[in-house]
Amino acid sequence: MGSFHIGGRVVELQGQPVQTHRYSDHGVPVVFNLNGRYWIEQMYVQYFEPSQRHAVPLLLWHGGGMTGVNYESTPDGRDGWLQHFLRSGWMVYNCDAVERGRAGWPALPESPWPTAPVLMSLEHAVERFRIAQGETGQFPVTHLDVFGKQLTPRWTSTDEATQRAYAALLQRTGPSAIVAHSQGGSFAVRVACEHPGQVRALVLVEPANPETTVPDLHGIPVLMVYGDGIAQDSRWPHIHRKGLAFAESLRAAGGQVDVLDLPSVGLHGNTHMLMMDRNNHVIFRLINDWLLQRKLQA
Amino acid sequence: MGSFHIGGRVVELQGQPVQTHRYSDHGVPVVFNLNGRYWIEQMYVQYFEPSQRHAVPLLLWHGGGMTGVNYESTPDGRDGWLQHFLRSGWMVYNCDAVERGRAGWPALPESPWPTAPVLMSLEHAVERFRIAQGETGQFPVTHLDVFGKQLTPRWTSTDEATQRAYAALLQRTGPSAIVAHSQGGSFAVRVACEHPGQVRALVLVEPANPETTVPDLHGIPVLMVYGDGIAQDSRWPHIHRKGLAFAESLRAAGGQVDVLDLPSVGLHGNTHMLMMDRNNHVIFRLINDWLLQRKLQA
Repeated sequence: MGSFHIGGRVVELQGQPVQTHRYSDHGVPVVFNLNGRYWIEQMYVQYFEPSQRHAVPLLLWHGGGMTGVNYESTPDGRDGWLQHFLRSGWMVYNCDAVERGRAGWPALPESPWPTAPVLMSLEHAVERFRIAQGETGQFPVTHLDVFGKQLTPRWTSTDEATQRAYAALLQRTGPSAIVAHSQGGSFAVRVACEHPGQVRALVLVEPANPETTVPDLHGIPVLMVYGDGIAQDSRWPHIHRKGLAFAESLRAAGGQVDVLDLPSVGLHGNTHMLMMDRNNHVIFRLINDWLLQRKLQA
Repeated sequence: MGSFHIGGRVVELQGQPVQTHRYSDHGVPVVFNLNGRYWIEQMYVQYFEPSQRHAVPLLLWHGGGMTGVNYESTPDGRDGWLQHFLRSGWMVYNCDAVERGRAGWPALPESPWPTAPVLMSLEHAVERFRIAQGETGQFPVTHLDVFGKQLTPRWTSTDEATQRAYAALLQRTGPSAIVAHSQGGSFAVRVACEHPGQVRALVLVEPANPETTVPDLHGIPVLMVYGDGIAQDSRWPHIHRKGLAFAESLRAAGGQVDVLDLPSVGLHGNTHMLMMDRNNHVIFRLINDWLLQRKLQA
């Protein structure tokens, strides 16, 4: 196991006045010279390598306003997909993409990004992630507050930087399988188009905003997974339709794509946060079986 | 292994105008209602439990502007203290304190904290952490840029919130040994004073701003560790003197305190970032031996 930062670029500040900070009431004053170089737009990656492992590693990419914590222990303390994939023999790389979590963010006098960060409220997250599905909902709603502590600020102008960081990650890991959630699905599809030799399989878990034009996925097998409660939502019917159109286009172009609609296989109440839902291990097994059947080779 | 968030409090926003965001060029517009509840001041904790372990767990607390990443792989890719402690049989809890890393931070229209965050430049870090010690320096300077990617914004008004979160962590872990670096040392000393039954040993690695009044440490054994290059620094002679005065006061009051001055045991060139230095395993072993000799009991 280990971790690293990857990607990013250096910005340099000049001409800033020197500040003095005291870090605590009885601290020694620190002359704080902002002028100098800063790394921004890097990504954080933590990896775990089982002693016996499959031929290619597996990359876990989270969604918007989120971090790799999504894939660790669930809010109610059960094993997350990270632990499940590790136990199944995958070398796993779990990421905090640009601008969130351990990737850091540029708190500088002028932001290098044109937008301000937005943070979701608990109520907003419950609505957007289709968490409140009533009695049959699969989210561990008794631990909603623990999930609320995972929410992280999101910039809306860092897509290109994030795309570059993910491409740099694939350069480092070599050919990999990618499991990408929500916003992460867009990054995964594009990285597969641009670096097809580095991607052996794509699992898109409730991908947000899939492309409507047909990308050339060069025969990379794709699995798309959708939960429940989509018809009752204000945004998801549209996103879901776009996803199915994407799948159809891929198929028409000779691509391999499977769509796993959980309610249609008898799994009800799943939210957008499938990896935390009470039946997360059941969904993990379906995804893992699909991956193992692909017999991926490095 | 697993992770959780702990501590924090809820703030509620009311009366904010509704915004509309588009998360990407071809994204579905999202009506963004900022009104609602937010968790702030929580802390992120990742833990690893070896199959055979010592009687008490070990908590790793980082310094200011830093995250738990400090204790993971070094910038040049060697094992960090996290891996070394795990291999030695400790159950390890590694933290991202309030406002940094996977703990998240409150990007809200009005910050709940009175100060703005500050971010260190690479040049500033090199100076403050005594990294540039020339030929004999122990920091892996060829990988300075990788270290630069770890630097994270720091607020100077979150000490009380951080103190509360660390106290909440000790409530959860039960009696523990604490290894605390730099700013983390102040939190560790205070938590030991306020919750002595939860702390079995304190290792203060280059503690910043130790108390000058004698705290009652209730017989908890303390190890203080200092690197090299202190005399040549602008701030560290003062901080070091305060640390030694703290140790003397503790001893005079009957406390157990050892000071490990690395140059005096023949280890030269160590910086403030001891856990990343090229001889980090040697320093780990000195600390670990000291801990094991304490024969800590739950």
